[in-house]
This record gives sequence, C-alpha cells and structure tokens, in this order.
Amino acid sequence: MIPLSEMMSKVRGKCPLVHFITNYVTVNDCANMCICCGGSPVMTDAAKDVEPMVGLASALVLNIGTLNDRTIESMLIAGKEANRRDVPVILDPVGVGATPYRTETAERILKEVKVSVIKGNHGEISVLAGLGGEVRGVDSVSGAEDIAVAVKSLAQQTGTIVAATGPVDYVSDGKTTVVLKNGSKFMATVSGTGCMVSGVVGAYVGANGVSVDSVAAGISAVNIASEIAVSDGKVFGPGSFRTKLFDAVYNLKGEDADRLLRRE
Amino acid sequence: MIPLSEMMSKVRGKCPLVHFITNYVTVNDCANMCICCGGSPVMTDAAKDVEPMVGLASALVLNIGTLNDRTIESMLIAGKEANRRDVPVILDPVGVGATPYRTETAERILKEVKVSVIKGNHGEISVLAGLGGEVRGVDSVSGAEDIAVAVKSLAQQTGTIVAATGPVDYVSDGKTTVVLKNGSKFMATVSGTGCMVSGVVGAYVGANGVSVDSVAAGISAVNIASEIAVSDGKVFGPGSFRTKLFDAVYNLKGEDADRLLRRE
Amino acid sequence: MIPLSEMMSKVRGKCPLVHFITNYVTVNDCANMCICCGGSPVMTDAAKDVEPMVGLASALVLNIGTLNDRTIESMLIAGKEANRRDVPVILDPVGVGATPYRTETAERILKEVKVSVIKGNHGEISVLAGLGGEVRGVDSVSGAEDIAVAVKSLAQQTGTIVAATGPVDYVSDGKTTVVLKNGSKFMATVSGTGCMVSGVVGAYVGANGVSVDSVAAGISAVNIASEIAVSDGKVFGPGSFRTKLFDAVYNLKGEDADRLLRRE
Repeated sequence: MIPLSEMMSKVRGKCPLVHFITNYVTVNDCANMCICCGGSPVMTDAAKDVEPMVGLASALVLNIGTLNDRTIESMLIAGKEANRRDVPVILDPVGVGATPYRTETAERILKEVKVSVIKGNHGEISVLAGLGGEVRGVDSVSGAEDIAVAVKSLAQQTGTIVAATGPVDYVSDGKTTVVLKNGSKFMATVSGTGCMVSGVVGAYVGANGVSVDSVAAGISAVNIASEIAVSDGKVFGPGSFRTKLFDAVYNLKGEDADRLLRRE
Repeated sequence: MIPLSEMMSKVRGKCPLVHFITNYVTVNDCANMCICCGGSPVMTDAAKDVEPMVGLASALVLNIGTLNDRTIESMLIAGKEANRRDVPVILDPVGVGATPYRTETAERILKEVKVSVIKGNHGEISVLAGLGGEVRGVDSVSGAEDIAVAVKSLAQQTGTIVAATGPVDYVSDGKTTVVLKNGSKFMATVSGTGCMVSGVVGAYVGANGVSVDSVAAGISAVNIASEIAVSDGKVFGPGSFRTKLFDAVYNLKGEDADRLLRRE
Repeated sequence: MIPLSEMMSKVRGKCPLVHFITNYVTVNDCANMCICCGGSPVMTDAAKDVEPMVGLASALVLNIGTLNDRTIESMLIAGKEANRRDVPVILDPVGVGATPYRTETAERILKEVKVSVIKGNHGEISVLAGLGGEVRGVDSVSGAEDIAVAVKSLAQQTGTIVAATGPVDYVSDGKTTVVLKNGSKFMATVSGTGCMVSGVVGAYVGANGVSVDSVAAGISAVNIASEIAVSDGKVFGPGSFRTKLFDAVYNLKGEDADRLLRRE
C-alpha cells in the first residue's frame, strides 16, 4: 500500500484540474475544499463548454444533488468525452433512491458513461447495490444490513471502485475492501461534506490514478483533517468546524496523516 | 402559548425534512442553518423531481430570490403537490415590488398555491399588502407607516400567517399579532439571513404545525442565537458573526431561549 | 488622485446597488463582500427580470464563471439596458481562453455591450489582449511577458478601463497605468477572490464614477483588508482567512487604507 503521505504529495505537486458538474448548494465548499487539498477546481455545466473543459482536466466529478434536464445532458456529454480521453469519472449519486428522477439519472449515467468511482453515503450505495437502504431527501437513513457487502457487490456489478462514506467508510473494487475509521461527528453537521469528499477523491484519483488506495486516501485526508480540526477544543459547532476543516485540510502534514490513519 | 423551548425540542426530535426551492445566492447558508436548528434540508428544483420530493417533506419553502421561468414552474408544481398532501408551504417573496417579474410571480404563487406562511422583510410585506413600502433590489428600504397594520392586513387578505422581519419582527394570522424584539444588528450585514430564517420557519412549522406561535418560534430561535453569538465580544464583523451564528443556533438551549425571548 | 479613503466614504455613504449576473460557485461570497465594502448586492439573471433591475442599479457586474445560453442572453439584455441608462458595466471574463465557448462569449459581450471595465486575472487579460497568456480551468497559468503592456493594449483596443489582478495588480485606461502592490498570499487560496474583487469594483465605480482611480480603489480596498486580516497572526489557512477577510473589509478605516496603500 502506498503511504497516504505520498498520495498527498502527488496531489500537491501536480495540482490536478478537477472538473465538477455539481449541485448549487455545496458547490462553493467543493471548490474551496479542492483547493485546500491541493487541486484546482473548475465548475462548468453548459453543454457547449464541458467537452473542451473536461479535456483539460485530470478528473471529472458528476454530482446529481440538484440535477435538471439541462445539466444531466451536460453530465452525459462530459462523461463520454472523459471516457474518450481517459479522464477518470467520479459519480456522487446524491439522493438516489429518494425519487425516481434521481434513481433513473444515476442509472443512466452508469449505463452511458464508464464511471471509475461511485462515492455515496451508506443509503445511496445500498440502494444502488439493490440491497435495501433508505434515503430521505439527500441523507442516508439506513444502509444495507452489511454495508461492506453492499460496497463489494456494487463494485462487482458495475466494475467500478465503490466508496460508501458515513461514520465508517468502506472502499472496494469488488475484491479488496478497505475500512476507514477516521472522522469527526461534526462532519455530519455541515451540509455537503460528502460532496466535498467526492471532490477531494477527484483530486486524488486525478493525481494518483484510479485505485482503492487513491480513493481511500482522498477520503482519509479529509477525515483525518476533521479530527485535527476539533483537536484543540475550539470547535463549538458547525460554523467553527467548517472554518477549521478548511484550514486543517490545507495544513495537513504527511507525517500526521500517516500516523493518524486508521484503516483496516 | 407553547414555550419556545418545547417547539425547539420538537424540531430537534422530529428532524423535519424541509424541501427548498430557493435562490442560488444563499442556498448553502439555508441548508446549513436548517441543519443547525434541527431540520434536514433538501434542495431540488427540477419539475420532474419536486413532486415526489415534496411528498417526503414536512414543509416546502419557496423563495423567489433568483427566480426564472423553469424554477417558477417547479415552484407551482411543488406547491400544488404540497397542498394535495397537506405539506405547509412557506413563501419568501424576495424582492417583490422591485420588478414586475417578481411581483407577478409572488401573486401567481399566492393565487395558484395555498400558502401557509408568507415571510418577507418590511418592504416586501408592505408591498404585498398594498400599503406602500419600497424594495431596492432585494432589500427593504421602507415599510408601511405601521408595519403591524400591514402584516395583519395581508394575513386577512390572503388567509395566511404573515411575518415581516427586520429590526423588529411582526407575525400575524389576521387576528393575533405578536411582536418579536430579539436580534443583533449584525443580522443585516450578512446576505440571506432573511432566507435562512424562512428555512428555519419551515422546520418549525414542519415539526410543530402551522400557527403564529410556531412561525414566531422559528424567527425567535435565530434572533436569540444572534444575540448569543455576539455576546462574548468575539464578533468583529460579518465574517465572524456568520460563523458564530451557525454555532449559536446549533447550541441554543431551551432554557436560554425561553429566558431571553422578548415577545409581546 | 482622489484619496482611497474618500472613495471608500462615498461607497459607504451611497450604498450603491450592484446588479450581478454571475456564477453560482462564488455568488454568495460576492454578495457578502459587496455588503462588507458598503454596497448593496442583487443577483438576478432571468431575461424578464434583468432589464428593470439594472435600471435600479448603480453598476452591473457580468461574470462568465458558469455561463450558459440562458444567462448569456440575460447578460446581453442587461448590458444593453445598462448602456441605455448609463449604468457602468464591469466584465469579469472568467476562464476566457480555456474554452472556445468562454472566449466567444467574452468577445460577444464586448462587441454588443459597451463595457466600462474589464477585470480579469493575468492569464485572462493577456488572452483577451492577444498577447499570449494561458488559462487552465479558471486559473491563470501565465500572463503576457509584460502584463503592463497587455493591460494597456487591451484598454486601447477596447476603449475600456482594464484591470489585471494577481500578485501585483495593473489598471490602465490605455494612457495611465497604475500598479497596485497590496495583498496577501492567502487571496489565491480562496475560490472566487477575483470574483469578489470585481463586485467591489462595481460598488466603487457605482459610487465614484468610472476611472482608473475608482477601479484601483476597489481592488486596493480588498487587498489592504487582506493584509490586515492576516496581521494578527490568527489566520491559519483558507478557512480562517476568508472569515477574517470579510471582517477586515467591513472594518477597514479610511486612514489605514491611505496609510497602507502601495500604488505606483
């Protein structure tokens, strides 16, 4: 396994351009988190603009948090162009299972685009795996009984790397499944931490190639930073946590990341 | 009158799903403030997605801050479905009176959808009541001479509960009018505090039912938290205020809320 | 040259309404920064809404960060109405040169609308001037060999005031070119500081008229505030910097601004 610190160094050294087609709720935090981890974000969703832009990018992040017919079209155009150019595609199937439109869109993207990584919460991944799970709005209510099974099953069904984030995170390529145990309870109190993590995964995959390790590294980088953010006792709630999370991701040192990593 | 602390407990206990169709300027703050007060926000505005989503929700918040023909259509679809399912609808008529498009849209929503609560600033409510008032951009320049009269009049005209927020807040159902006197002057220095309050009202109405008390409780929860946010002398401007406001709403204790409430 | 402090006072005294048609990534920060500097922001981009709104405004800011066919149409409608009403138009050509769609849109706006100020990063301004420059995504990779030449040349070609921001800022009307040397390295770590500066320039131009001095004043106000923000040693990264930047712009004193200004 490549040390997390090495993956971090690659992201910071290469500063991968990450092209997001994402929701308008958490888009600013996604951009700033991408910068903090060492990447360079660009958000554009016009059908006429996405093809040339994705050609410049090291990764494409598709997030269906606030989808509509216009941006779905752009996601498909961008995804297909990413495939032609071997740019890895990360899909964050926000709210899949909550409404038919979301479920159909996630399935359509998975059918028409070769996705490299699917990253959702426990409910979303369980729904996509066909193993139960409940999503209310965009939040996970319950995952499969055994979320490790769901992650592995979806990875095998789709031929992608699948990550389910939550209190504990699971990443699988269908053969190997790693379990990540870092994180702060405050992560769940800020809207869009899941979206931000997907963007960071984009940067890690863009700089380090697609693998269980690179996906896990992106997730762990944010989660370890969240522990550091709260460690000095000056986080009093979601507001101060968010501010300090950006600082902590930006300042995360390789040696601390390696030392604090809890991965099985 | 039900104590504010009881209303707060209900919100935190039920974690009502609040469906927002709202502007893209303050949408992230609306989501985070909704989480901080105890609710669960979901933002979606595609015509194909809003009907099933509002069916899952405890309240629907329609905010016309950055309206366009596509999202107005979605607001009407969602509003009518909310009516069919007895989901309360909160309308925040941002900028009504500033342009014909905004005025016509607010009137159209009020005509086609049974709105439970109208929450605007002094200028917007006065304009809607037909009692003068001036709105410049999306900010209130002047309200009716007697804003209490405007609130009561609009409540009677529309059969809704009407709230006008500003340095002093008024809430009326056409019979009873309550006056709320909490708040910090910093509330006016952050874009979208009005939008955030509308979302919190959605959570309060969703968890406690529609009443003058539940609407007033949502407004007071944020305003009291804004006083706590500035009380330790560590707010230096709009940036630090915003951070601490999220923390304060999240940490607000029922006993403090009841003790600090200034309501007539 | 009018002192910066006088320009600041005019902005705070007049509270100019600044109409933004801008990207959804940094829109909230643009709104809040506009308030912090003393202006009043309004964001609206519906074709039916922009004409009456721009008629109320003191400046119109067009930012192509997340453009699409619908909003480009609205930018052209708003821009032409601004011209009819002598409302100054500020163009922020985000990402021009990165994709054909962005380049064509910037050129189309410059052809169909009389723009008063073009404000971009070094790469964008160099591209528009036809003097090289490279833009990756929305970030400047390299500017013209001599950015002062590019700024002056573009000003002469277009008959506008041109500002190129970066570690050092240049503002020119084609005859006089001023060089601005304030700023903090943290400005580059937050998404959209360039967009925020464009909005502040809108407020300064709206309150003080269009001139090299008023454009330079808007840029310097934010840059000097960024130095004050980091001066107490309590900025630890992009998160805390952003919070303190809003506070610092809001609290900036005229005498400090004049004293700290580094302009050639």
